[in-house]
Amino acid sequence: MLETAREKTDDPLITYIKMPIEDINFSDAQFDVVISSLAFHYIKSFDTICEIVYQYLKPGGSFIFSVEHPIFTSRDEQDWYYDDQGNRLHWPVDNYQSEEVRNTTFLTENVIKYHRTISTYINDLIHIGFKIKAVKEPMATEEMVRNDPGMKDENRRPMFLIISVEK
Amino acid sequence: MLETAREKTDDPLITYIKMPIEDINFSDAQFDVVISSLAFHYIKSFDTICEIVYQYLKPGGSFIFSVEHPIFTSRDEQDWYYDDQGNRLHWPVDNYQSEEVRNTTFLTENVIKYHRTISTYINDLIHIGFKIKAVKEPMATEEMVRNDPGMKDENRRPMFLIISVEK
Repeated sequence: MLETAREKTDDPLITYIKMPIEDINFSDAQFDVVISSLAFHYIKSFDTICEIVYQYLKPGGSFIFSVEHPIFTSRDEQDWYYDDQGNRLHWPVDNYQSEEVRNTTFLTENVIKYHRTISTYINDLIHIGFKIKAVKEPMATEEMVRNDPGMKDENRRPMFLIISVEK
Repeated sequence: MLETAREKTDDPLITYIKMPIEDINFSDAQFDVVISSLAFHYIKSFDTICEIVYQYLKPGGSFIFSVEHPIFTSRDEQDWYYDDQGNRLHWPVDNYQSEEVRNTTFLTENVIKYHRTISTYINDLIHIGFKIKAVKEPMATEEMVRNDPGMKDENRRPMFLIISVEK
């Protein structure tokens, strides 16, 4: 399942590698920055991946990633709670402390996600040796809400969690 | 509103001071540890208090505090969502990004609390200069659930957030 594409521009050389995150294999302390976007909630072994990232980063290097927020992933349904008229009453949280598989529907059916608590995300990183630089729960700006009133609901519960740490 | 009681044991000397947190006034860098239990969600100026604590701590000193969890404080009601039979369906989250007063009922009516997001708690501390050591969302142990089956619900949503930081 390994595909490598090399796209040469003037500079720098960019290499794309398509493979399971768990199988990455680089030499130690070679990267300045590692970025991951909305991937880790599909992966069982968060702490193992973080250990590998730590190993591949240079001292002082940055690791920045986003995941679906634990408030968002706590229930299999991952949806608002509606009244009889279809109005969004609130965002339901349940099973928060149960860090197991969630069987969800996202774009297609039978999508496996792994719910973790906020404290697990943060403490796993600290335990490995990372320094927490920032934790973000992005929200809809006033401009976004002006252009799309439906975006207002995005501020009723956080959908994403972004964590920035340093080796 | 200042009351001071001195209780002399062999050693150490313990001094109790009853006054608003905002008014504390000590000399700089004198404490090894500062602890606060379930107080800051009643206080508007979290970042200011943290700056003062930072100032009073020795280098390497610890600051550990608990607050009601932002999942718990997001709504004025701060209660489960029930069905017609009085069963707890789930814990409702709403207005999460709105960091304002919550008018709650807790032991008595008209109890003002200040809801903050998880990211605000963490980033305020980092911004002041603290290093995040651990973030805990305590849960009911198996023994607690065995002794009181109602405790099972405590693991459906986090009620408390405990943060430990170092100067």
